[in-house]
Amino acid sequence: MAFKIGLLGYGTVGTGTAEIILDPEGRNSLLQEIEIAKVGVRSLDQPRSPQLSTEVLTTDLEAIVNDPEIEIVVELLGGLEPARSLILQAIAKGKHIVTANKAVIARHGEEIFTAANQAEVYVLFEAAVGGGIPVIKPLKQSLGVNRIETVIGIINGTTNYILTQMTEEGADFEEVLAEAQQLGYAEADPTADVDGYDAADKIAILAAIAFNGRIKREDISCEGIRQINATDISYADDLGFVIKLLAIAKRGRSPIAKANADNDSLQVRVHPTLVSKDHPLANVNGVYNAILVEGDPLGQVMLFGPGAGKGATASAVVSDIVNIIGFLQTSNTTRKLDPMLKCPHDHFKQLTPIAEINTRFYARFLCQDVPGVIGHLGTSFGNHDVSLESVVQIGFRNNLAEIVVVTHNVQEGNFRKALEEIKSLASIDSIPSILRVL
Amino acid sequence: MAFKIGLLGYGTVGTGTAEIILDPEGRNSLLQEIEIAKVGVRSLDQPRSPQLSTEVLTTDLEAIVNDPEIEIVVELLGGLEPARSLILQAIAKGKHIVTANKAVIARHGEEIFTAANQAEVYVLFEAAVGGGIPVIKPLKQSLGVNRIETVIGIINGTTNYILTQMTEEGADFEEVLAEAQQLGYAEADPTADVDGYDAADKIAILAAIAFNGRIKREDISCEGIRQINATDISYADDLGFVIKLLAIAKRGRSPIAKANADNDSLQVRVHPTLVSKDHPLANVNGVYNAILVEGDPLGQVMLFGPGAGKGATASAVVSDIVNIIGFLQTSNTTRKLDPMLKCPHDHFKQLTPIAEINTRFYARFLCQDVPGVIGHLGTSFGNHDVSLESVVQIGFRNNLAEIVVVTHNVQEGNFRKALEEIKSLASIDSIPSILRVL
Repeated sequence: MAFKIGLLGYGTVGTGTAEIILDPEGRNSLLQEIEIAKVGVRSLDQPRSPQLSTEVLTTDLEAIVNDPEIEIVVELLGGLEPARSLILQAIAKGKHIVTANKAVIARHGEEIFTAANQAEVYVLFEAAVGGGIPVIKPLKQSLGVNRIETVIGIINGTTNYILTQMTEEGADFEEVLAEAQQLGYAEADPTADVDGYDAADKIAILAAIAFNGRIKREDISCEGIRQINATDISYADDLGFVIKLLAIAKRGRSPIAKANADNDSLQVRVHPTLVSKDHPLANVNGVYNAILVEGDPLGQVMLFGPGAGKGATASAVVSDIVNIIGFLQTSNTTRKLDPMLKCPHDHFKQLTPIAEINTRFYARFLCQDVPGVIGHLGTSFGNHDVSLESVVQIGFRNNLAEIVVVTHNVQEGNFRKALEEIKSLASIDSIPSILRVL
Repeated sequence: MAFKIGLLGYGTVGTGTAEIILDPEGRNSLLQEIEIAKVGVRSLDQPRSPQLSTEVLTTDLEAIVNDPEIEIVVELLGGLEPARSLILQAIAKGKHIVTANKAVIARHGEEIFTAANQAEVYVLFEAAVGGGIPVIKPLKQSLGVNRIETVIGIINGTTNYILTQMTEEGADFEEVLAEAQQLGYAEADPTADVDGYDAADKIAILAAIAFNGRIKREDISCEGIRQINATDISYADDLGFVIKLLAIAKRGRSPIAKANADNDSLQVRVHPTLVSKDHPLANVNGVYNAILVEGDPLGQVMLFGPGAGKGATASAVVSDIVNIIGFLQTSNTTRKLDPMLKCPHDHFKQLTPIAEINTRFYARFLCQDVPGVIGHLGTSFGNHDVSLESVVQIGFRNNLAEIVVVTHNVQEGNFRKALEEIKSLASIDSIPSILRVL
């Protein structure tokens, strides 16, 4: 018996999904149980491959989510609306959902999962993070028996491509961005990628699963890569680092959180980061993605692969579909959802404010070339409990001494206060770069 | 309601498993549904941590597999017997099985899975390959919608540690093996690891899942690392390679297989291999493991992490237990096994004989320093359709010219015939090393 699915959208990922389902030989045998019953498109005139019969194609998306024969709705529209409304409507009709839409899951997860758990339907979203890398199901089904300490991801292919090119070519941001846009690796409006919003959506999703609680997307501290330049990439290289846009979720460890006995608090942040060259994430280059999970007693596991692209994303979408088919094939009407696959939480995690996190920093200063300037820097940092790992005068730029400081693990708020004090010193001209260090 | 489990064995992995289950805070909430009802040990006198009550410990392993209250039997004895018999007995009693035992799954999979499918019980074995790396469930539940082309693993931590140390220290095999034995990274009898048998068990398991058919363990071509020496590691380095013990499973592509229209045949082999330094597997060092899966349309995905150790292995064992708990919690007596988790095949795959595979080779020759010797080598290879990528005279050793050859992709049988011819040449003294190249 075939199970009927409806696709909302038939663009790159939609056609990729159909290609897998319509060519099942040599793949999971459950693919043969899938029937693509309806596909919602914007216009019926456009030629498409794989071609579908005219009864399957429709421009009426609501007809798909209301079709009583369809058991799984696969949402591949992207964006917040009408994706959100159609997903909620489909859930209300008792349909399972598969989606590749990180924005709608990250920002409307609360109402979607509440509705899904009430209706006893699955909402699966493997394709929303890391493209073809299995990460959502492994976090739910394998890694969750650990006490997860950190999830760190390179989960935006566009920015990783840009930073890799900048590193390899010594080129500046604007130049490489233009190149990436020509190659189709960056959008005409690159904001969601280069300002870190896409990575923030994705780390919100990963953190919710890894730490078992909802994440308020708007509370995630988010910095993009527009300010990264060839100078800092080169200095980082000299110090043994590469610069990566990391999305980080970490069990709260700030002294203030500890004093409040708030063991439950969590840091979630996206920012360009200096990563030591011998760290597993340092070798993740180009459009590849990787997610590093650290837990007790597991240690470190890293999942690596293509973070985007038609085939990779479709692979993740279809894996969710067959998991639901497996459930449908063996369940009866009284059966409940498997707790390993459904959303098991309904509370929000408290996020640690960025000023309270502990991290290492890299900062570059332009100073008057007067005796004692390094002493002034050191004193100001010391005044605010910021201990330094290294202070190096790299050279001169426009008659100003260029000094690079790397700190030990310090509280971000203290570091920022020290910078305020340093800015007021007569010998300091400017602070062109401030970056965090993993 | 708690589900009762019985542990066969309470050594390193067993105590690690108990540590996770008895300390569930901050982990998957299903852990709270597990009750460790019985633990089978060799002697009751030994002190153990975590300590268990005297009613739980028993030396009667059969009593555990026959206990009507126990729903899941966790086999952590290792070795073939009595593990195999106890697993089969437990299955016959309708119990689900979790095991970390790669040998028993690789060598007795046929009878175990046939029995399990008849009894409608799960046999899960995430810990059997790659320690804490989620790889078995991702292959079944995520990656299997692809047409898998290759699975390549660094799946033996001992040999990877030895090769890494040899590379970093320029040391020879025997020296590093002794060091690894002192550190507990290698057994007193290192055969299973250094001769590749452990890796062969593991690739048999991965290949069965990835290519959906049983693998005859004894048909796997298996070469270990005893013959690897500092000289070849250094020459490989000059050529841009590192040497890794790879376990490879690959869809059959030999010309002979093609002529027979045998699309279903498969190469499965374990051998030391030259890996290009820019390949993702080249950076997997020390006791870490990694599994690279290549499929259509996915592309390449790599799963990386600790391949052994108490916590990592226990993490995998417990993940299997909670997956079965999730099933038990929501199923009723009439429910069948989820096809995404059970063993879905019952036929054996045909394996391509090693002589018929295609691969690149690296070979080192010691030759008389006479004019034309490179020409003789080239002619003999050409006689057997072996095309060469590079021929380099590295230098001299004991008045003999040392020449390193790297081939293109060639049929192994042809390459071996060419070597036979070359051995008979008057100008060839010996062929100290023959290695495959990824």
